Amino acid sequence: MAPMSCCCSPAAVRRRLPVLAWLPRYSLKWLKMDLIAGLSVGLTVIPQALAYAEVAGLPPQYGLYSAFMGCFVYLILGTSRDVTLGPTAIMSLLVSSYTFHEPAYAVLLAFLSGCIQLAMGFLCLGFLLDFISCPVIKGFTSAAAITIGFGQVKNLLGLRDAPRQFFLQVCHILRNVGDTRVGDAGLGLVCMLLLLLLKLMRDHMAPMHSEMPLGVRLSHGLVWTATTASQNNYRIDANQELLAIGLTNVLGSFVSSYPVTGSFGRTAVNAQSGVCTPAGGLVTGVLVLLSLGCLTSLFPYIPKAALAAVIIMAVAPLCDPRIVRTLWRVKRLDLLPLCVTSLLCFWEVQYGILAGTLVSGLILLHSVARPQMKVSEGPVLVVQPASGLHFPAVETLREAIVSRALEAPRPRCAVLDCTHVCSADYTVVLGLAGLLEDFRSHGVTLAFVGLQVPVLRVLLSADLSHLQHFPTLEEAEKHLNREPGTQPYNVGDDSVPEHKVALLKV
Amino acid sequence: MAPMSCCCSPAAVRRRLPVLAWLPRYSLKWLKMDLIAGLSVGLTVIPQALAYAEVAGLPPQYGLYSAFMGCFVYLILGTSRDVTLGPTAIMSLLVSSYTFHEPAYAVLLAFLSGCIQLAMGFLCLGFLLDFISCPVIKGFTSAAAITIGFGQVKNLLGLRDAPRQFFLQVCHILRNVGDTRVGDAGLGLVCMLLLLLLKLMRDHMAPMHSEMPLGVRLSHGLVWTATTASQNNYRIDANQELLAIGLTNVLGSFVSSYPVTGSFGRTAVNAQSGVCTPAGGLVTGVLVLLSLGCLTSLFPYIPKAALAAVIIMAVAPLCDPRIVRTLWRVKRLDLLPLCVTSLLCFWEVQYGILAGTLVSGLILLHSVARPQMKVSEGPVLVVQPASGLHFPAVETLREAIVSRALEAPRPRCAVLDCTHVCSADYTVVLGLAGLLEDFRSHGVTLAFVGLQVPVLRVLLSADLSHLQHFPTLEEAEKHLNREPGTQPYNVGDDSVPEHKVALLKV
Repeated sequence: MAPMSCCCSPAAVRRRLPVLAWLPRYSLKWLKMDLIAGLSVGLTVIPQALAYAEVAGLPPQYGLYSAFMGCFVYLILGTSRDVTLGPTAIMSLLVSSYTFHEPAYAVLLAFLSGCIQLAMGFLCLGFLLDFISCPVIKGFTSAAAITIGFGQVKNLLGLRDAPRQFFLQVCHILRNVGDTRVGDAGLGLVCMLLLLLLKLMRDHMAPMHSEMPLGVRLSHGLVWTATTASQNNYRIDANQELLAIGLTNVLGSFVSSYPVTGSFGRTAVNAQSGVCTPAGGLVTGVLVLLSLGCLTSLFPYIPKAALAAVIIMAVAPLCDPRIVRTLWRVKRLDLLPLCVTSLLCFWEVQYGILAGTLVSGLILLHSVARPQMKVSEGPVLVVQPASGLHFPAVETLREAIVSRALEAPRPRCAVLDCTHVCSADYTVVLGLAGLLEDFRSHGVTLAFVGLQVPVLRVLLSADLSHLQHFPTLEEAEKHLNREPGTQPYNVGDDSVPEHKVALLKV
Repeated sequence: MAPMSCCCSPAAVRRRLPVLAWLPRYSLKWLKMDLIAGLSVGLTVIPQALAYAEVAGLPPQYGLYSAFMGCFVYLILGTSRDVTLGPTAIMSLLVSSYTFHEPAYAVLLAFLSGCIQLAMGFLCLGFLLDFISCPVIKGFTSAAAITIGFGQVKNLLGLRDAPRQFFLQVCHILRNVGDTRVGDAGLGLVCMLLLLLLKLMRDHMAPMHSEMPLGVRLSHGLVWTATTASQNNYRIDANQELLAIGLTNVLGSFVSSYPVTGSFGRTAVNAQSGVCTPAGGLVTGVLVLLSLGCLTSLFPYIPKAALAAVIIMAVAPLCDPRIVRTLWRVKRLDLLPLCVTSLLCFWEVQYGILAGTLVSGLILLHSVARPQMKVSEGPVLVVQPASGLHFPAVETLREAIVSRALEAPRPRCAVLDCTHVCSADYTVVLGLAGLLEDFRSHGVTLAFVGLQVPVLRVLLSADLSHLQHFPTLEEAEKHLNREPGTQPYNVGDDSVPEHKVALLKV
């Protein structure tokens, strides 16, 4: 995180209002590109918003109510030119647990979650998102995509009264697949084929740039609008994004929005349409408002099978089964959070994310509390923690050294190689003091090697008795093997040569 | 933790029933020492148990009900010859929140907490105790000692109707100090002086050993009984201890015990009395049972002021204000969990421990998520994480490198020195892949240095494109500065020399 400066300094204001950075430099060339991109995103968001409202268990117009506030807020507060806020498939699935087919609950949820996001943004709690690991994100998006996609199969087939829970729904559809309505299924399949065709067209088109004629770019945009891909590499300020999303939700709740967030798919549309600044959102927002003004009376006539086709094509790229093979190859332990997350997400998405993050966190804490150690047996035992040394690990380290060096018929000297240890807290110091005492009581020596300056400073300040340290392992072993020549830097020893004292005093 | 073997193997049985290790080798010499030690501990525990019951808000005999079961259970299950289980001052303070002056609640609490401890022991959750750092333990014991000690001042002065809450109690005593009853105060002060005298005698006595005549050892033990010190260096199996304490509490609840745990003070008495095996507990347990049989009718006549003196002298050594100075000198950040713990413990001990552990854990997670990095600026940027690289840190690392190397008017090459990194999970790999992509898109090179074999293996298995790694920083800089001679080990490059391929294949 950037260091906190005064909240009213010009730099802080510019960080909180990124619009100030790009607006003064705004040009006509940018305007043309933003217009195309905003139009493309607008034409994407209108059918998607109508469809996602169905996922959230709300009437279709609530999707549009949720689709414009984010555009205007992000214009002022957004850090990335590409990101677009609005209703998303996964957020709609999350919201569906709390709507009970009563829009008021969804709107209240938008207000409350907005307040929480604003508070998190102001308190700079965005770093918490770092603790959600990639396997958790992959497991959660894949499971949510399957849940959402399969939830639309009933609409695609024209089946009714399917239960909400994923596994029950699968059983229900399999049992009633004979009642499929041919008209619904036909329309749905045609829509899906059309979307697939557009996707294929897109995959064979060159990316858009500002030298293309307006007509080409517009048709380009139209192809993009109907299909998505999530392939972007953003580095954004998590706290600022929390502020933008939070404000969107709070303000949105005043216009009957349900909770919204950043959309992977439409963000990609925006980027590939060549957007230059967040001003593209202005066009999108106006387009959504226009459609709300003119088209609301037509919503009851939208076939559910067509919406189902839009949703299925939108979430299909989110499901990525190859991740299992990748993790098996790269890091098998990461399959655990992936499996926990995705399995629980089929039950309830929020529990899946929570449980997966917990499992990731436990794996992390375990690696911190039980670090790898390199042990070299020999006349002198050498133990090297393979990475840092944190307080939950110190008793294990002590046990490992004592059991190998002292709990034998003939106790032997040991060297603790701290090359990879960059800090030590009081618990670690106390544990090392106990270890030194263990060795002293057995009449053998424990020496330290490779102490980094901050660790050495902490150990010296704790006045550990019998602390001996050497710059290299060779010198330590030479001394411990009772070979004359090398003397340890015994603390308080006046004979320590000048350059060694300098090290102590850094 | 020791690796789990079959639960019925001889080694597993010996680990679960440590009595099998020492009983076959029991000797007459050990018996004499254990007899003295058991007697000493018994004479300590009887007045302490009566006094601690008062702290727990229970009639005095409940202290004795709680004092013998641990002796018998620990004989069979204990891993340390010195530890003694029984009522303690701090556990009594914790229990007092839940008794409401109704012993049945305290007994139920013993049963329930015993069940939880047994479950934790069987599930090998003893490692959780590693996450309670020393500052938390110090803060909690100091605050509990002050609370308990000050809670007895009203009994010492003969005041009545004092409120339970610490700060209210202080006000009450200050306001009513004029009502002090001279008899109570006199008796209390005489008892305290006597105990102080015994403590001074003890401090000037040589430690006990088996060559001393029986009479000397007995008088020695008598001096030890009345005073305590907690200066021991046990390394015990936390899971086995949980089993022993859990079983003690469950069985104890059948004989009206309230929750017990290991006593620092009496464990020290036991050690200094020269105990040889846990068999000393047998003597202690019988002594407590005898006192219950013969002395119960006398309990109402025990002056509260005398009990108060016993308690105050027992908890005084637990309060260690020097820890503040030590932490200020050694590691100032550790003052935070210390202060949080001790301040909240004055309100409720259990919240203090919880909050302190949470603060310790957050400091730990922060150091893992925001690791120190050594940055060397120059024509080539060199960044070295000072310790391990865990998944919550990877975005920060990426930000640090990109902002320094790429977000300048002229992007420059960079070296990521992974000398101290011993493992990488999928999130880290993905972050590094993104970083390589950032550099590729800017047309400059990111090279890796000092990759340990497990990290290298993970990176190779992920098929990172443009991965270049060098054994030393010098070689990397030589290559990046476009000096001919050194070639990176480009993955998939057939010209890699034999010994370098060997490294890749380890």
